[in-house]
Amino acid sequence: METAQRLLATQRQIPADAETVSHQLMLRAGLIRQLASGVYTWLPTGLKVLRNIEQIVREEMDAAKAQEILMPGVQPAELWEETGRWDQFGPELLRFSDRHDRGFCLGPTHEEVITDLVRSEIRSYKQLPAIFYQIQTKFRDEIRPRFGVMRSREFIMKDAYSFHLDEKSLQETYEVMYQTYEKIFDRLGLEYRAVVADSGNIGGDTSHEFHVLAESGEDQIVFTNNGNFAANMEMVATQMPSAQRPSPEASIEKVSTPGKHSISEVSTFFSVSEDKTLKTLIVHGEKDSLVGIVLRGDHELNRVKAERLDKVRSPLKFASAEIISKELKCDVGSIGPVKLNIPVYADYSTSVMSDFICGANENGFHYKGVNWGRDLPEPDFVDLRNISQGEPSPGDNGPVKIARGIEVGHIFQLGTKYSESMKVSCLDENGKSITLIMGCYGIGISRIVAAAIEQNHDDRGIVWPKSIAPYDLAIVPINMHKSKRLYDSVMELYQQAKAAGFDVLLDNRKERPGVMFADMELLGIPHRIVLSDKALDAGTVEYKGRSDAESRDLPRDDILAFIRDRNDPD
Amino acid sequence: METAQRLLATQRQIPADAETVSHQLMLRAGLIRQLASGVYTWLPTGLKVLRNIEQIVREEMDAAKAQEILMPGVQPAELWEETGRWDQFGPELLRFSDRHDRGFCLGPTHEEVITDLVRSEIRSYKQLPAIFYQIQTKFRDEIRPRFGVMRSREFIMKDAYSFHLDEKSLQETYEVMYQTYEKIFDRLGLEYRAVVADSGNIGGDTSHEFHVLAESGEDQIVFTNNGNFAANMEMVATQMPSAQRPSPEASIEKVSTPGKHSISEVSTFFSVSEDKTLKTLIVHGEKDSLVGIVLRGDHELNRVKAERLDKVRSPLKFASAEIISKELKCDVGSIGPVKLNIPVYADYSTSVMSDFICGANENGFHYKGVNWGRDLPEPDFVDLRNISQGEPSPGDNGPVKIARGIEVGHIFQLGTKYSESMKVSCLDENGKSITLIMGCYGIGISRIVAAAIEQNHDDRGIVWPKSIAPYDLAIVPINMHKSKRLYDSVMELYQQAKAAGFDVLLDNRKERPGVMFADMELLGIPHRIVLSDKALDAGTVEYKGRSDAESRDLPRDDILAFIRDRNDPD
Repeated sequence: METAQRLLATQRQIPADAETVSHQLMLRAGLIRQLASGVYTWLPTGLKVLRNIEQIVREEMDAAKAQEILMPGVQPAELWEETGRWDQFGPELLRFSDRHDRGFCLGPTHEEVITDLVRSEIRSYKQLPAIFYQIQTKFRDEIRPRFGVMRSREFIMKDAYSFHLDEKSLQETYEVMYQTYEKIFDRLGLEYRAVVADSGNIGGDTSHEFHVLAESGEDQIVFTNNGNFAANMEMVATQMPSAQRPSPEASIEKVSTPGKHSISEVSTFFSVSEDKTLKTLIVHGEKDSLVGIVLRGDHELNRVKAERLDKVRSPLKFASAEIISKELKCDVGSIGPVKLNIPVYADYSTSVMSDFICGANENGFHYKGVNWGRDLPEPDFVDLRNISQGEPSPGDNGPVKIARGIEVGHIFQLGTKYSESMKVSCLDENGKSITLIMGCYGIGISRIVAAAIEQNHDDRGIVWPKSIAPYDLAIVPINMHKSKRLYDSVMELYQQAKAAGFDVLLDNRKERPGVMFADMELLGIPHRIVLSDKALDAGTVEYKGRSDAESRDLPRDDILAFIRDRNDPD
Repeated sequence: METAQRLLATQRQIPADAETVSHQLMLRAGLIRQLASGVYTWLPTGLKVLRNIEQIVREEMDAAKAQEILMPGVQPAELWEETGRWDQFGPELLRFSDRHDRGFCLGPTHEEVITDLVRSEIRSYKQLPAIFYQIQTKFRDEIRPRFGVMRSREFIMKDAYSFHLDEKSLQETYEVMYQTYEKIFDRLGLEYRAVVADSGNIGGDTSHEFHVLAESGEDQIVFTNNGNFAANMEMVATQMPSAQRPSPEASIEKVSTPGKHSISEVSTFFSVSEDKTLKTLIVHGEKDSLVGIVLRGDHELNRVKAERLDKVRSPLKFASAEIISKELKCDVGSIGPVKLNIPVYADYSTSVMSDFICGANENGFHYKGVNWGRDLPEPDFVDLRNISQGEPSPGDNGPVKIARGIEVGHIFQLGTKYSESMKVSCLDENGKSITLIMGCYGIGISRIVAAAIEQNHDDRGIVWPKSIAPYDLAIVPINMHKSKRLYDSVMELYQQAKAAGFDVLLDNRKERPGVMFADMELLGIPHRIVLSDKALDAGTVEYKGRSDAESRDLPRDDILAFIRDRNDPD
């Protein structure tokens, strides 16, 4: 491909409205353009990356004997009413009526459609197990789309669904899909982790998420060095400490703490570490009630754990400063569990605290020397917090590490949630009717583009893994339009490279070298070959790998073999 | 691929609600399933055909230096308001609001989106001409979807748009696209014709349609043997006859014609050929007016020509029997131009008729011996009819032939319709701002699947052109599960065929041979190889091409070379 014939659409300026590196680089490298909030056009370079990812996913799904189909984007309301999701799904489900006033939605997922298909097409156990997948455009009407294609409204998913006669078959296919996902993310050249996950609203029991590791990731993932434990932070249980609570040594005392609100301010004021303080959060409970959530000062709340508590409203909602002030007669920064007249849950870790510090429920005052049982009743001790780096892992796998990840894949054991409500059964070997068991398996194709960039970039631009790079190599001639023999040499190398199977971008614009170099680095092309009259005299080219610190001169005749070896060292 | 792992979903029964052969066969061969009216899921076999077509289209568009992009399916109302099409487009444009009450539509076409993209991305004449294309799912809310994917609501299009500084550049690209379309339809293995077409609502001047020839086609196309003339029937002008009108010989006479309404009945009653009679149609004009349309009895009305007449309402609407009876005091079958008190247009061909027969505007009566100028005023003679088989073609290219076609491609010279309303300009070499000139180029990818079947089928099923067949060849073993050595031989051939690059379907179901043969013929696979223990002894296989009358025994070792030669005789 020649740049002169191509809409490169590169930009020097960092786009003002793009918050994340991947969003900025996708705009600057000309991969996408926004059409409407959360709705993007894929430009030529971006589409190539997307297609490379699609192709790897397709090949591995086919190898796993999944059957590719293509379901409609527009789905009839009736199917969603059968499973009850027409009412359950929030405003993310974009609903509309056609010209005959029949209800439809833009499909954000396809459990209903595939289950309906299988209900009419699969009659016999001989056709099972069956895995169907599609690579397709979906729509979720996100309230606040952001980060470009990372959280867009229109996006491309690979979604797959499996159907089984029994649990054992589901387990086998689930394992095959898990391994298929590993192959896919290995081939994509991404650093990732599979973690045990919450199965959320999709329903079902077991599930794993696949996260691309990146500092900017929205999720925290917890794992151990021995590889035997990895889970989404949401899912990592912490235990009731086995230690004895130390006996109280101090008396409770109310201290004036003017202007001290945060845990950091309070612990500094009292000259203690944060783990000697309590943090009290106020959330909404059932109906108009409020609930207190008490954590050790240095710990983080785990929202999913809080949402699971009986008295706490789900989804979790923090009480506003106004409500707290009105109901509890003090500001947020002065709340504490002593004489707090609402239900209180306290994290396990606080059960072994003595002589602690907490808000006095009076503006500008804290208590010190507080003790459970003596100064306030023993609360309900429950698991409420995120595990911290270095704590022992569940199951004795050593201390945990915590990393940030971007969720790009999710596999679920759905069970019979959809097959029961939609009445999908088939006859087994003995002619007995069996309700089918389902699994489902998603990969966010368009999101992977952004996640790959979050993980692989530097201050000059994108650094694509070679399997998904839009081009394998860039040929950049210097002043080609002034030298016929350079032109001939460049075109010869260009044809040779294409014939050798490389996807080549020839920068034949009449631009200054600096502009061309900057664009090729911004685009993240793995290999760059610079040709000039001078190099031609020496029989060399100037080569630079995208992550190399320096360029180097290499013999012109060996350059393609050199690149091939570098791509495939074995 | 092995059938036992595949959702073949073949059916013996002809589906009751499928009117056309292609719709019936697409259901029976398990290519598609309906999810909602005009909305289909593509099953594994159907998707393979769709992808084969996509790939040919993609390769040829790439070869023509068109740049592939992917625009969103969901489009914001504002863009459509800029071009005025938000109001002009009928209810086929599915409009809806998102959760923030902003207006959107499901894109039936992408002129607005691409023009908006080019408006912000193309700055300089150096980037022109540029052709962008996408292969994408579109939605048109057809009032009456029918014929399966032939006229569905959700469908897959290749749409391309080109941008130019001047007319000459547009002409050049238009010519390249015309040739690209010829290459595409040649490679698809379809019999087709490119014809001059009406550019309709898309706007612009010149356009050509590409039609797949099939008896069931909705369009009539007109062409000559010398290849120099081909047009959609809508576009073929007929001329005012140069002959002199014969002088009247008979007097006008009112004849009782009880129960004779149609031209056929009337001409039989009078024992004359139909070309001695006049046919009078009543259509709606402006406001509440009616207009008479007079044709020679044996001629067909051309709706597009009628719609272009000043006094005739567009789109054309025939007056109902009730309205005719009320306003003209007689039934449809007795209408004629004599003393008809509404404006009358008569086709050119009627200008040379004398002593003709027509309705008397009185139930049960016709006139004979009628003559223009004497018995009724000379009407406006205009071009109103379809040309007939064998008439001289426009431009002296010999007699015309008429065939039926299915429109699968359409190329337009759009001019500045969109670039003017959306203010898309760029600087030319001299720094002068130029409003861009556009072309657009569509191919109905999903419709081609149906059109290919309409053209290529027999009473046993589909007969795919080899380039788009879902599989190259089928291997059908007889009683393989009873013979280990047959199994080994079959698997060896299967592996050899795959290694030789064939896409193979191995029918390893435990079905009777008749069932397997019927399925493979229904699926339309170009080559079938049957293996049995008996043939194994003889060192042969039984081979049958899909269109062959008989199967034949061929040496086992030569079969793949034989098929390769048959596919590529050169």
